[in-house]
Amino acid sequence: MKNPLNRRDVLIGMAAVPAGAAAIAAALNQPTSRADRKVGYAIVGLGSYALNNIIPQLQRCRLSRLTALVSGDPVKAKRVAAEHGVPERSIYSYGSFDRIRENPDVDVVYIILPNSMHAEYTIRAAKAGKHVLCEKPMAVSVAECEAMIAACRQAGRKLMIGYRSHFEPHNLHAMRLQREKAVGRTRFVQSEHGFPIGDPAQWRLKRKLAGGGSLMDIGIYSVQALRYTSGEEPLSVTARESTNRSDPRFREVEDMIDWTFAFPSGAIGHGFSSYSSGHNHIRLTGDGGWIDLEPATSYSGQRMRVRRGAGEEQVTPPPGPAINQFVGQLDHMAECVLTGRDPVVSGEEGLRDMRIIEAIYRSARDGQTVRL
Amino acid sequence: MKNPLNRRDVLIGMAAVPAGAAAIAAALNQPTSRADRKVGYAIVGLGSYALNNIIPQLQRCRLSRLTALVSGDPVKAKRVAAEHGVPERSIYSYGSFDRIRENPDVDVVYIILPNSMHAEYTIRAAKAGKHVLCEKPMAVSVAECEAMIAACRQAGRKLMIGYRSHFEPHNLHAMRLQREKAVGRTRFVQSEHGFPIGDPAQWRLKRKLAGGGSLMDIGIYSVQALRYTSGEEPLSVTARESTNRSDPRFREVEDMIDWTFAFPSGAIGHGFSSYSSGHNHIRLTGDGGWIDLEPATSYSGQRMRVRRGAGEEQVTPPPGPAINQFVGQLDHMAECVLTGRDPVVSGEEGLRDMRIIEAIYRSARDGQTVRL
Repeated sequence: MKNPLNRRDVLIGMAAVPAGAAAIAAALNQPTSRADRKVGYAIVGLGSYALNNIIPQLQRCRLSRLTALVSGDPVKAKRVAAEHGVPERSIYSYGSFDRIRENPDVDVVYIILPNSMHAEYTIRAAKAGKHVLCEKPMAVSVAECEAMIAACRQAGRKLMIGYRSHFEPHNLHAMRLQREKAVGRTRFVQSEHGFPIGDPAQWRLKRKLAGGGSLMDIGIYSVQALRYTSGEEPLSVTARESTNRSDPRFREVEDMIDWTFAFPSGAIGHGFSSYSSGHNHIRLTGDGGWIDLEPATSYSGQRMRVRRGAGEEQVTPPPGPAINQFVGQLDHMAECVLTGRDPVVSGEEGLRDMRIIEAIYRSARDGQTVRL
Repeated sequence: MKNPLNRRDVLIGMAAVPAGAAAIAAALNQPTSRADRKVGYAIVGLGSYALNNIIPQLQRCRLSRLTALVSGDPVKAKRVAAEHGVPERSIYSYGSFDRIRENPDVDVVYIILPNSMHAEYTIRAAKAGKHVLCEKPMAVSVAECEAMIAACRQAGRKLMIGYRSHFEPHNLHAMRLQREKAVGRTRFVQSEHGFPIGDPAQWRLKRKLAGGGSLMDIGIYSVQALRYTSGEEPLSVTARESTNRSDPRFREVEDMIDWTFAFPSGAIGHGFSSYSSGHNHIRLTGDGGWIDLEPATSYSGQRMRVRRGAGEEQVTPPPGPAINQFVGQLDHMAECVLTGRDPVVSGEEGLRDMRIIEAIYRSARDGQTVRL
């Protein structure tokens, strides 16, 4: 469960990035006979996020379509393929994955696997000549992130990380308001993310598969939010962890982590991550008011309030087109493939978060502020 | 300005603590001919908080009344005295303050002076045989707090600190809900307090008078809130400061301080204090939901929301009697004087906060976690 606060799928289904058919055809990396061909996605990993959020949204995209599936469960893969018009020849197992190179219908490989498998499949996809959209966290270490970036660069392929909030209208509006100084000079940014995790046997609670605990899985939303709402990069981080190691869920990974960023402007950022309580919140406070999102990064149902001086205003929905964040993300990657531009949330962006996450863990472990 | 978010005085005016007239008469410390005599208050310092919040509320109290004024401004004192029926003989200057000993109409001295004057006037009041209600922060150092407690103990007089939130129904209801585990086991408590401070010449920005910056003045609400909502005492604190020393307001005192408490239960507390942005918020998150107050500690207009599972509920007004926090505080002190019981927010409570405040400053200065 990535974001528990709101699991309704209130979908709007408008493409984030309009692009002319001619530009698309001109820029297509792989030869095609039809100018209106959409960018083909192979989905790697058929867990609930892929099945409930990504695959249904591909059908609403303007520039993207589902063309292949990669799964360790052939029965499930066959069923999903039949439901979505994917030919049986475009179903792969993890063993046969590398043969995806020979599939001209696949432009992008979208990796929705446990964190520790991201690096391997990104690198294999790049070697197979495919562009990569990889779920967050990008990997489980800075070293892996760097190897993934190098592999995609070497193959001349795009690498994007699944930071869907960059395509979600409330979050985009918050970034815009901050840039316009709508609530004045930024002073304090806070973001808390968490959910009470259940089954102790799930992969998220195994260090080998997840690479870490709540920070890797849900806290990364707070790390990102502090950066994208403030528009600043932290100079240092001070962190503390609190985990009850006798709780069967937390034998291998952390429960709660709390950290503070020092930003170059003098603003303070505070982040929090939990596997034992529910949080989904971003607030940026300036010297003239605040911008508040809660839920902030749910699949849908975001709510936004803005306070300026004494007045408080609901800003839901925010101004601008009603973009579905999943569609926006998928079509943005498609547009990057078609036009050659770089994704707004590239591998470098994922690497930045991983550097910060490693610093948070180090600061919590050593009890000292870590410079970035 | 203590709390800028809501300065409307929506006053309800019900006594917090009913007490029988006979019990009052029996317990009165000073002899009186009338069984229904109310406890007499001398107000020390006629700033806006005294004039706008305390003096008007004394008229609504069941057990308390205004009987004397202490001010450095004789014209102002005369005007206020005339408005509130205080005889001219009961007006004191700071020079003549000690003569208050001879005034049988004064039971309690309520000190509403700049922080650095709290210790001196508390000790002088105790030596004059009076009970003391002192505004927060109790003083500017642990040593001063200890001296104040000793002076009141030696004189056999009560000492209470002006933590009005302990008499405010929303805050009381939050404490009750936490004790009843209404949102489960406490995991994270957060509280932010601040306001953009104005005139650089005011006493709050002078170290000698204020003893510190935003933490002393408004951040103490966050310190208190983390303790009274969680019902726990911090084991350690990790803090960071951010102050632009070229801002004319912050030549002598800090702007923003951010800190984290480690609580014995494993819960984390996060506090924030600012003189450059507006905050007035408390949230306690348990493993089953959260309790949110915003504004939390304003003079009036508190709002409370409770989330349990997927459901969110407005809890304004909370259940129970509609107590005005100022009246509740004044009559609680009166009841303590009349019955001999100890105030719920005694000098020891103020001392605890001051120990924590000193630890926050030390941690921010040294960049290390400080054990308490």
